[in-house]
Amino acid sequence: MNNANNPSLKSWIDVKNNSDFPIQNIPFGIFSPKGKSPRPATIIGETVIDLSVLAEEGFFDDIIDEEYDAFFASSLNDLISLGKEFTAKLRNKISELFSYDNELIRDDSELQSKLLFKQEDVEMHMPVEVGDYTDFYSSIEHATNVGTMFRDPDNALFPNWRHLPVGYHGRASSIVVSGTDIHRPNGQTLAAGEDKPVFGPCRLFDFELEMAFITGKGNKLGNPVKLEDAEDYIFGMVIFNDLSARDIQKWEYVPLGPFLAKNFGSVISPWIVTLDALEPFRVKGPKQEPEVLPYLKFDGNRNFDINLEVAIQPENGDETIVSKSNHKYLYWNIAQQLTHHTVNGCNIKPGDMYASGTISGPTKDSFGSMLELSWGGKNPVSLKDGSERKFINDLDTIIMRGYAENNGVRVGFGKSVCKVLPAKKY
Amino acid sequence: MNNANNPSLKSWIDVKNNSDFPIQNIPFGIFSPKGKSPRPATIIGETVIDLSVLAEEGFFDDIIDEEYDAFFASSLNDLISLGKEFTAKLRNKISELFSYDNELIRDDSELQSKLLFKQEDVEMHMPVEVGDYTDFYSSIEHATNVGTMFRDPDNALFPNWRHLPVGYHGRASSIVVSGTDIHRPNGQTLAAGEDKPVFGPCRLFDFELEMAFITGKGNKLGNPVKLEDAEDYIFGMVIFNDLSARDIQKWEYVPLGPFLAKNFGSVISPWIVTLDALEPFRVKGPKQEPEVLPYLKFDGNRNFDINLEVAIQPENGDETIVSKSNHKYLYWNIAQQLTHHTVNGCNIKPGDMYASGTISGPTKDSFGSMLELSWGGKNPVSLKDGSERKFINDLDTIIMRGYAENNGVRVGFGKSVCKVLPAKKY
Repeated sequence: MNNANNPSLKSWIDVKNNSDFPIQNIPFGIFSPKGKSPRPATIIGETVIDLSVLAEEGFFDDIIDEEYDAFFASSLNDLISLGKEFTAKLRNKISELFSYDNELIRDDSELQSKLLFKQEDVEMHMPVEVGDYTDFYSSIEHATNVGTMFRDPDNALFPNWRHLPVGYHGRASSIVVSGTDIHRPNGQTLAAGEDKPVFGPCRLFDFELEMAFITGKGNKLGNPVKLEDAEDYIFGMVIFNDLSARDIQKWEYVPLGPFLAKNFGSVISPWIVTLDALEPFRVKGPKQEPEVLPYLKFDGNRNFDINLEVAIQPENGDETIVSKSNHKYLYWNIAQQLTHHTVNGCNIKPGDMYASGTISGPTKDSFGSMLELSWGGKNPVSLKDGSERKFINDLDTIIMRGYAENNGVRVGFGKSVCKVLPAKKY
Repeated sequence: MNNANNPSLKSWIDVKNNSDFPIQNIPFGIFSPKGKSPRPATIIGETVIDLSVLAEEGFFDDIIDEEYDAFFASSLNDLISLGKEFTAKLRNKISELFSYDNELIRDDSELQSKLLFKQEDVEMHMPVEVGDYTDFYSSIEHATNVGTMFRDPDNALFPNWRHLPVGYHGRASSIVVSGTDIHRPNGQTLAAGEDKPVFGPCRLFDFELEMAFITGKGNKLGNPVKLEDAEDYIFGMVIFNDLSARDIQKWEYVPLGPFLAKNFGSVISPWIVTLDALEPFRVKGPKQEPEVLPYLKFDGNRNFDINLEVAIQPENGDETIVSKSNHKYLYWNIAQQLTHHTVNGCNIKPGDMYASGTISGPTKDSFGSMLELSWGGKNPVSLKDGSERKFINDLDTIIMRGYAENNGVRVGFGKSVCKVLPAKKY
């Protein structure tokens, strides 16, 4: 079987330069061909491949046994539950089937007609049923920016921040797939100098540039996942736009954390890029000082060099890239996040999602939210059409993209796209 | 068909005085008879009734059609998704079948042998698959106690508290059914006067006496549930023990709220008592001042007179009741909680769970947590065996009970039981 990550592999499926989905990627998602039910898929170039058809035609017979049903489910939960050893084999098998010199499918146009779909012709769905969703706060630049703006520049980080990956539980039900429009939320806010809140549309609508990982394996309640095993539980990652209503958040979040400011919608990219495919892009993370407690210590490179960007596209206008950041800036890595999450015995399940928190970089053009980019509204961001933004306007579309690249191979995430609709009349 | 709430009804099944489960209750749960798979049930007295058998035998044929499968599922999610109109019919039908003068099942001992089970012989399971779990903070006495202890007695409540039902998202995966033992969690804590945290077993292990409601109906993202409709979405309630690690919480919770201090286990009573069965126990809630915003205004009695108690039972000892409280003390009612939760468009689903927050009453013996009962450890609580507790010890069992009673009818919740095991070696 192939090594799916081999950088010299080519596919007989057309892959354009700068495609996020060369044969080295082989991410997993859920799509529906016109008139048919949602089912598992992968993508090469701009061609979506129906994995249920490959399973049905027996192409996976040498690697699957009783796991057959997982290829016909409307979410990937069952498929990823089969374990990373299995999904590694599956990626290698798919890589083999679509390699340039493999004629099995390449020369079978009848099979191709029911197996392959143009990306533009299909609908993508949530790749997993999210059981629980956790949001971390793991970018030191972001936490420092927020602390500097709202509290004290000299004590921007709270005392716990460098000792543990701060995190909180979020809403799983309102995580939606790229392309879902979201209405500006209504809610309570307190105007400066007032002592009574008012009700109405959020005025400070923001995005947060994040990535999220998805677990493919669970543990039993009371049984922590140790750091050295943590990545065995992590199946892959997506781009995660954590929409935020800053004015609602300010009024509601003390003392128990964000609630309605965050749970009206979070928008993910549709393809889960496996940790296996990201293997060539590991890099060292920031130095952690003071030294972390023993349960959070790790060996090796645990950060990933993934370029991220955010663009705003006004209605009928061109998009403007407003931020360029990178997953590698994260102070706390995903293995530490998951280890900390379960150190008290908390149980996790396949399909659970864990977002990074806003990923800001060290420079002003790498900040991951409008709050930081406009520095609380003081420095509006200019768009190509001459307009300015302190926060997000109605009918703006927020586009997030991400990809890793080296040795001439680019492994990308596609995009998270979300148009902001006006608040509904309450 | 019967009116299941009729106080003069009697069942041909034996019901002891002070039973939580007279024929007027008819709660819903998931049980497994020995060697069989989990399935829906109700209970009368101490007799568990297999609803899958009633469905199979055709007793529900005049009320069900394509909903038949829901009676064979391993959670109640499908059954409660059928809607409150249906579950009301179902309660009435069950009431009719087990009424004293109905000979259909009463005189069929062969049917009884596969339909009826002694409570002590069966295992209870989680009644629903919890999609999302939310914890409110709706007792003014509890919020005031906490604010008085940790901040300022003169400004115990945060400015937002009287304007909105403060809530936050919690962990759904670690909600377990009564009878599940929970290990004391390990975690990071900061000792007084220190600037570096240490890792080890939680020292301040606490319970929180709460109740939780479960939604049986969902809304679409972007479509708030209005207050006048909120109770249509609420199927029923359970007792909810929100286990809490106070020392872990203190170190971790600023600024994004409780995380590992809460997600190592929450223990519910196994039977969901329907809102229909609680109808006779509605009472007026506390006066809300200042006046709430229009979207939170309500008519009628929205609180419930449900007596609650907590007992601690040391290993091999007798239990001591340490708190007696009541659901009616809640400042924010369940309709307001759900309305606020969705006012921004947040979507909810059948099976989602919403806990009240600790329900403390006005007197010291009605406080709903050890934190309050021992006033932060200053006033230890005496147990019958002569020992004292500031917080919960290893091998203590925490027992919570609840029931409503009037007109000679008692509608109860059974109990939430949880034994605390020593921390595991990490």
